[in-house]
Amino acid sequence: MLLMLFNYLISFSQNPVNYVNPFIGTSNFGATNPGAIAPRGMVSVSPFNVAGAPNLPLEKDSRWLSNPYINENTFLTGFSHVNLSGVGCPDLGVILTMPTTGALKTNHLEYGTTYTNEVSKPGYYSVNLSKYNVKTEVTASTRTGVSRYSFPKGQSNILINLGLGLTNEEGAVIKIVSDTEIEGMRNVGSFCYYKPEEAYPVYFVAKFSHPADDFGVWNTPKKTKGIESQWMGYNGKTRLYKQYKKEVIGDSIGSYFTYHFKEPTTVEVKIGVSYVSIENARENLEKETQGLTFDAIYNKTAATWNDLLSKIEVEGGTEDDKTIFYTALYHTLIHPNTLNDINGEYPTMAKRETAKTKGTRFTVFSFWDTYRNLHALMSLVYPKQQSDMVKSMLNIYDESGWLPKWELNATETTTMVGDPAGIILADTYLRGIQDFDIEKAYEAMRKSALQLENNPLRPGIKDYIEKGYLTTTTTKSGSVSTTQEYNITDFAIAQLAKKLNKKQDYELFSKRSITYRNLFDKKFNLLRPKNHDGSWFSPFNPNTGANFEKNLGFIEGNSWQYTFMVSHDIKMLMKLMGGKKQFVKQLDLVFNNKQFDMANEPDINYPFLYNYAKGYEWKTQDRVSSLIKEYFTNKPAGLPGNDDTGTMSAWLIYSMMGIYPSSPAEPNYTITSPHFNKITIHLNPNYYKNDKLIITSNTSKDKNHIKNIRIDGKPYKDYFISHKELVNSRSIEFTLE
Amino acid sequence: MLLMLFNYLISFSQNPVNYVNPFIGTSNFGATNPGAIAPRGMVSVSPFNVAGAPNLPLEKDSRWLSNPYINENTFLTGFSHVNLSGVGCPDLGVILTMPTTGALKTNHLEYGTTYTNEVSKPGYYSVNLSKYNVKTEVTASTRTGVSRYSFPKGQSNILINLGLGLTNEEGAVIKIVSDTEIEGMRNVGSFCYYKPEEAYPVYFVAKFSHPADDFGVWNTPKKTKGIESQWMGYNGKTRLYKQYKKEVIGDSIGSYFTYHFKEPTTVEVKIGVSYVSIENARENLEKETQGLTFDAIYNKTAATWNDLLSKIEVEGGTEDDKTIFYTALYHTLIHPNTLNDINGEYPTMAKRETAKTKGTRFTVFSFWDTYRNLHALMSLVYPKQQSDMVKSMLNIYDESGWLPKWELNATETTTMVGDPAGIILADTYLRGIQDFDIEKAYEAMRKSALQLENNPLRPGIKDYIEKGYLTTTTTKSGSVSTTQEYNITDFAIAQLAKKLNKKQDYELFSKRSITYRNLFDKKFNLLRPKNHDGSWFSPFNPNTGANFEKNLGFIEGNSWQYTFMVSHDIKMLMKLMGGKKQFVKQLDLVFNNKQFDMANEPDINYPFLYNYAKGYEWKTQDRVSSLIKEYFTNKPAGLPGNDDTGTMSAWLIYSMMGIYPSSPAEPNYTITSPHFNKITIHLNPNYYKNDKLIITSNTSKDKNHIKNIRIDGKPYKDYFISHKELVNSRSIEFTLE
Repeated sequence: MLLMLFNYLISFSQNPVNYVNPFIGTSNFGATNPGAIAPRGMVSVSPFNVAGAPNLPLEKDSRWLSNPYINENTFLTGFSHVNLSGVGCPDLGVILTMPTTGALKTNHLEYGTTYTNEVSKPGYYSVNLSKYNVKTEVTASTRTGVSRYSFPKGQSNILINLGLGLTNEEGAVIKIVSDTEIEGMRNVGSFCYYKPEEAYPVYFVAKFSHPADDFGVWNTPKKTKGIESQWMGYNGKTRLYKQYKKEVIGDSIGSYFTYHFKEPTTVEVKIGVSYVSIENARENLEKETQGLTFDAIYNKTAATWNDLLSKIEVEGGTEDDKTIFYTALYHTLIHPNTLNDINGEYPTMAKRETAKTKGTRFTVFSFWDTYRNLHALMSLVYPKQQSDMVKSMLNIYDESGWLPKWELNATETTTMVGDPAGIILADTYLRGIQDFDIEKAYEAMRKSALQLENNPLRPGIKDYIEKGYLTTTTTKSGSVSTTQEYNITDFAIAQLAKKLNKKQDYELFSKRSITYRNLFDKKFNLLRPKNHDGSWFSPFNPNTGANFEKNLGFIEGNSWQYTFMVSHDIKMLMKLMGGKKQFVKQLDLVFNNKQFDMANEPDINYPFLYNYAKGYEWKTQDRVSSLIKEYFTNKPAGLPGNDDTGTMSAWLIYSMMGIYPSSPAEPNYTITSPHFNKITIHLNPNYYKNDKLIITSNTSKDKNHIKNIRIDGKPYKDYFISHKELVNSRSIEFTLE
Repeated sequence: MLLMLFNYLISFSQNPVNYVNPFIGTSNFGATNPGAIAPRGMVSVSPFNVAGAPNLPLEKDSRWLSNPYINENTFLTGFSHVNLSGVGCPDLGVILTMPTTGALKTNHLEYGTTYTNEVSKPGYYSVNLSKYNVKTEVTASTRTGVSRYSFPKGQSNILINLGLGLTNEEGAVIKIVSDTEIEGMRNVGSFCYYKPEEAYPVYFVAKFSHPADDFGVWNTPKKTKGIESQWMGYNGKTRLYKQYKKEVIGDSIGSYFTYHFKEPTTVEVKIGVSYVSIENARENLEKETQGLTFDAIYNKTAATWNDLLSKIEVEGGTEDDKTIFYTALYHTLIHPNTLNDINGEYPTMAKRETAKTKGTRFTVFSFWDTYRNLHALMSLVYPKQQSDMVKSMLNIYDESGWLPKWELNATETTTMVGDPAGIILADTYLRGIQDFDIEKAYEAMRKSALQLENNPLRPGIKDYIEKGYLTTTTTKSGSVSTTQEYNITDFAIAQLAKKLNKKQDYELFSKRSITYRNLFDKKFNLLRPKNHDGSWFSPFNPNTGANFEKNLGFIEGNSWQYTFMVSHDIKMLMKLMGGKKQFVKQLDLVFNNKQFDMANEPDINYPFLYNYAKGYEWKTQDRVSSLIKEYFTNKPAGLPGNDDTGTMSAWLIYSMMGIYPSSPAEPNYTITSPHFNKITIHLNPNYYKNDKLIITSNTSKDKNHIKNIRIDGKPYKDYFISHKELVNSRSIEFTLE
């Protein structure tokens, strides 16, 4: 079912856009989708194949499922127009279009179909729908999804189903405006089955290239009980509103446009989306795509992709190496994505008043994941985007009084633990991306670090400050993990305070950044939860908590997977463990005892930690190379698990380039062996004095260990390099052996 | 609970507006309500007291209930802004406002309250809410409901509940626009639990005189099942969207405005309504009430009521006589009501496209009821309104291809049997109201009388034309009744054809108008259903079918109640029955055997039929007087049953004036004794040459029999008078004995 089409328009095989395989991550819970999307688009048009009979193994309503498309599934019920990529909770996956032929069916179980000939590339997806022999192609601009249906002659129908969706929310409104236009809205929200009171509508306008010969709306209300139902012959049955032109409201509603073609005919449908209003959805559609054909829109989007992906050029390596690399880069350019409409309007946090931005208001901030590497990558390769992301974070602070943690379309989902925004703000600033209001950023960071009451970002802050750690009483989910997360954020505040000459704060937060040490239990040489009275939590099994097993001290992990998550204080951790050798031994145990989890964030920088133990850097080089080989492949299952809005992909990109930002808020990289012979990173001249950095190496199947490094021709002995030194260099030459 | 307030502004006691008691009909299934409404208003603001614990005897969801207010109920849960009056099926009764005090509650079972001090008069209703000690007053302009809440100091809340409602439909959208404005829409429809595919939204905008100190929206989704529900801690629970400003969609939603008053404060809320759009609802509100206080709006509405009611002035009679008379006249001025917005826009039939009218597009055409007397009354007293109603009927024909039968807000509910529109068109034209396109009207009438296939107005038309009657095979509901209804319509077409010099049609339809004779069974001296082979339906019990009992031959009645429903052919019926004496004997049996049903239309002209039997006119006078006395009183139960959008009230008005249009489409009246000493009917000079007609009589408790009649001073011997002669007379003097 998997096929890479090399686009005739961008035919030069070295174009990075030709090395993206959007099917990577569509199996093994990667949670990506092969749909069409423009870089950081509000809209993506994804095939939707997760709805079917309730007993299907990967059916959306019979299990926890967070993506609109699963490579193994075979039953397609439409194309959803707003989607999340690489997340762990179901949401969005709504505004489904579906072409059918023959008699009208409105139940997806009846109109769904198998399919063949899938093609996916940046900004494009196509498939042949077996039941109808309709080729469907989709592309997208930033805020508009575009579909092209090649219908045979006879009756054809284009459905917009607002009942079906991945989100847990229901409720929609649809209105046929004319025989070429439909508008409506759909409830989404309750991400991770949480915060239902912040569910919100997404608005759309659909324009059709051909006027419908017939049209209407359906509504299938839920069956009601009670005495009145005896008079309702229609109870629970689908209603067809033929040629009806007012709003239809309901949970399970949709529209149909019907055609009677005398010859095979191609119909294009454009769907503009907005989180502000139907009017804005229409404006988005018109300003982005009015007068443009499917091909013109696709070509523009593909060219934008190619430009962005070309910011890193790689040479050498296998075709698969290039494919996993550029697909990863592609995945880091999906989220965070655009929230604002083309006129700059976007909804404010929670209250959803309409505000206006001059730049881009980004959304989908999965910071617990992305603070670890993705934003450092953005600062390096796409600093203007990173700057806009930071500004969006400050907007959110202005609107809600708090920095975001896991923001999704102007709702704070409060998913996961910790207070990660400050880490990103400090890291970005310290990497030299400074065109934002740093005083406001600093104020916002301090607020969540210091406010003792009603602090949504730091539950348990009182214990954290008084005792230095959260206890098994403070929280039922991750007392140790959360302590570590607060430590890292406090470290970030301290680093920024130092830079901003706020000495008192520097001292205060430096002290606060290492309190995890209170939780180090020499008996295990590991971190261990403490009870409220200061005693160790017992019995303690450091293995408990792997694979998302519940665990009082650690969230989504166990002690092995968290103990080393103190990059900013590794030297002391080493000391606590009994020195370098003990540290390496303990770290080896993580890997050797299969405690290492490539699919979850707390331990993803572990392979780089050998670099902190002089003489053991080769282990980093080995570990990283073998992890790449094991977990990142040019296959649907080619991601270790959820892509986590690009975090896994960013890990791969850095790892393959031979550098990794192993300690967030320290503007450094640690070094490992590159996986390409030549890597050219194009730098943005508005932020960096050089226009590019070239990393070369004699990497090959047999050569993976660093023999020596030369920077701008001079020997470089260290396995760490500051961001400043890196970007001010012109070349880094690796000699591998 | 019942109290008449004599308005200080319209204080002259002879003002008819002071003789209206809107509580009449709020018990005994009259289905009227005491809410505030402007004449033929789109909006009425009715207290809503039919929702409560499911085991309450008159609770809307535990029985068939068609009105928002029942006089005997005691638990008020708000004020609904669109309501039907005097109908037999539940619908509308939505957009409920409710003032509360103290902590916010969003469940009507919790915030509902008992009440005292109800006051109702045309355009005004007030009540004191016991739980909150909040006096609530409501008034209305044509398309805008206005509420005035007198709050104590402290926390107060104004709710708009879009979940609660009388209609069987669910689904709504609400959006808080600002701290003084809310907009939204609510699904309504499925009148009589039928035609769900024509359910439609009603739109509204609410403006508040005081900015809310706090505001929000609630949504209580239905509880869902399935595996996902285990992750939904919020499953089925009410969500509060605090200070949220985007659309909230759902079945059970509402908004709250909260105030913290430092002293007792009065808040006014205006709610504009439209069936076209939110924009139009806003324009309706603004054009009708912008800058006007509650009192100003009320005074204007009350003055309009007084003007209209003053078209008939009565003198003599008791206070109760005047009250039942003017209340009846008031009830005939509620439906049909206004559908179009102030800018002339209204939704077209079924498709609900936006069209524009120059006059008034009327709606709520319960023609099976109203063709019998109400439209004749309109032609006499409010001919301009009747003309606009006829034009609305022709609009409907233009839009849908068919004349209306039971039209409700641009949906054809197809309730009841027969093809009544043509009767009204002919009757109106023949009474001299002719400023409409009579050729189109005639074409429309002919269409439903002649189209054999896919004829929604005349099911069974083939049998009707071939055999002269419907059979027990043709229809399961009222083969005889339906034959009679078609006969009457065909008679109407014949009369109009005659007037328009269409001789062939006159002959055709005259013949078709008397085919009921085939169903006259001499054995019973009654009408009797026939089987498909022409044999009599057996066993036949003419008593079966009273009180809405199911009956194959007769809908909502039995043979006694239908046999005489052939006013246009009474002479022949008399002959069939064996002559005048037999006819009178048989008619007497209806009354003496308690087969007469004052609460249903088929037999309501029976009391007047004695006038067709010379020498027995005194029986009409007796029957009519005693029926008035028995069924029409100045009490909540003072209507015989459903008012049927004014049909029962029109019966009373005519009966008390001493004239009755006993044979629809014959522009005549039959005469009985008046119930007032002086009745002045003001005639519209655009339609009639005289400006008024005065009916005088020496009516008194003991004098009810007509001794003689003088018209314009000349003795008048007949008990029938043509409409033309009536309106061209200046005085009719009755001498009673």
